[in-house]
Amino acid sequence: MPSPIAFVSRTTDANEAEWIEMLSSALPGETILSVKTMSDDEKAQAEIAIVANPDPADIAKLTGLKWIHSLWAGVERLVAELGTTAPPIVRLTDPELTRVMAEAVLAWTYYLHRDMPAYRDNQQKALWKELEYRHPRDVAVGLLGLGALGAAAAARLREAGFNTTGWSRSPKTLEGIDTLSGDSGLQTLLAKSDILVCLVPLTADTKGLLNKVRLGTMKANAAIINFARGAVIVSEDLLAALDAGHLSHAVLDVFEQEPLDARSPFWSHQRVTVLPHISAPTNRQTSAAIVAENISAWRKTGSLPATVDMARGY
Amino acid sequence: MPSPIAFVSRTTDANEAEWIEMLSSALPGETILSVKTMSDDEKAQAEIAIVANPDPADIAKLTGLKWIHSLWAGVERLVAELGTTAPPIVRLTDPELTRVMAEAVLAWTYYLHRDMPAYRDNQQKALWKELEYRHPRDVAVGLLGLGALGAAAAARLREAGFNTTGWSRSPKTLEGIDTLSGDSGLQTLLAKSDILVCLVPLTADTKGLLNKVRLGTMKANAAIINFARGAVIVSEDLLAALDAGHLSHAVLDVFEQEPLDARSPFWSHQRVTVLPHISAPTNRQTSAAIVAENISAWRKTGSLPATVDMARGY
Repeated sequence: MPSPIAFVSRTTDANEAEWIEMLSSALPGETILSVKTMSDDEKAQAEIAIVANPDPADIAKLTGLKWIHSLWAGVERLVAELGTTAPPIVRLTDPELTRVMAEAVLAWTYYLHRDMPAYRDNQQKALWKELEYRHPRDVAVGLLGLGALGAAAAARLREAGFNTTGWSRSPKTLEGIDTLSGDSGLQTLLAKSDILVCLVPLTADTKGLLNKVRLGTMKANAAIINFARGAVIVSEDLLAALDAGHLSHAVLDVFEQEPLDARSPFWSHQRVTVLPHISAPTNRQTSAAIVAENISAWRKTGSLPATVDMARGY
Repeated sequence: MPSPIAFVSRTTDANEAEWIEMLSSALPGETILSVKTMSDDEKAQAEIAIVANPDPADIAKLTGLKWIHSLWAGVERLVAELGTTAPPIVRLTDPELTRVMAEAVLAWTYYLHRDMPAYRDNQQKALWKELEYRHPRDVAVGLLGLGALGAAAAARLREAGFNTTGWSRSPKTLEGIDTLSGDSGLQTLLAKSDILVCLVPLTADTKGLLNKVRLGTMKANAAIINFARGAVIVSEDLLAALDAGHLSHAVLDVFEQEPLDARSPFWSHQRVTVLPHISAPTNRQTSAAIVAENISAWRKTGSLPATVDMARGY
């Protein structure tokens, strides 16, 4: 009998029970226990923790921990809270999550490209007015971030005919997609994009990336889609750019504080679409299968998939 | 010098001038004149009329007319007004128009699939609430009409992973798409579709196709997209089905009277998205090139592309 696996999360008991049930059926040879119900002996024995937004104090009690599997793709909070002394962290890279995110990028790019917000405003005024249609090849879409999510989104945008350019901090090559990198590449991308899609991980480098100065260098009437993390964009600077009419619209799925405060000016802003962090919802079934596969492989071979670079934060 | 070509339309003078200019550059060897400015001799000589929503009285004055090229894909009004004694009619089939329509079907299918209307309503209430995400393979999209537009739309929906089924009056086969036909096929489609997309031409058979009885047999909570013609759906019956909560939403781009009357209940209906006939706007440049090609070929060879079946009406 292998040592028990600790499930550590700040979620509700009901949600936790569902996760443990799903993971247990995917890993029939393992015992998965909520850290809340584990004895001190069990806590000392556990070599693996499966975590979703865990309390770092709970992790600290797992003194024999060899590695952590995150159920989230975004681990910036985990990295910040655990610090560099944490054991290796494997983050979730679920192809289904990648597919759903790429679909969301295409869906909300169409939302902007086909002028759905403007037609909605006109409907409220009972105004019958055709807006100019542009061929997607004449619409420049810029993607910030070319990890698994960004690369998949770029491929779907390209298939749909959009003039797509990707950007990443360090140079990357993607088949059929123009790519830019570094500070000067970012300037080029901001100046030419009609629609800018954020898919960068939140790190010390990307926090506040889109601030007053960078938003100011964006093309006039451009729109932004943020499916990354709220803190990548400075909220007040974005509001100012929208109010000034420099930017035409923002589709925001992520915020520095979630759920978004009921008093946030984003809710009622005419040029903002607020979404409740739904661009790529976690699929419990496919996630559990991936976690199970990684754990089984480690039990057999002792090897792990790529782990999080704690210095870079992703 | 060939006989002059008559341009016949109920559009504005400015719009007519732009069309004539675009057509004249595409046909440098031809003289294209507005019927309003033609002499009686010129009217008697014209063998070809290029028309966009023409007044039938103007057509009747062209006594030497051999054929008509419509700038519109939908010719139901032209057929009804000219009657069976009209010369052969060639309607516009523009591959670019087909592409834009297929794009519109995918874009507004995503609009419904990704719950954009519901998230918009929640935004107005400052309500942060995740709605259930369904994989596109679990979303049944039914397409009414499998002409050039329907076939192209079906292909894009299939590529996007939707569980797509097409329907046409007479049996048709499409690669990779399940198809149904006839009355019993229509019943099957209505009963299973989560999203029903109308792309049928308006004919005596399809007028009022979606009436109270057929809307009543649709799957509960299904949504409708109408990119065909307003009269395919009985407006009062649709409103009743939406009000009763049987249907969740309707995206309407076409209406029996256009522009839609400012007093129409559709404008302010919570479950209706009103669009001003923009699903596939005519592209003057590509349309003019196609018209030019058909006219040049007729001048050289005397042969025409497939013409409208006046009995069927398309």
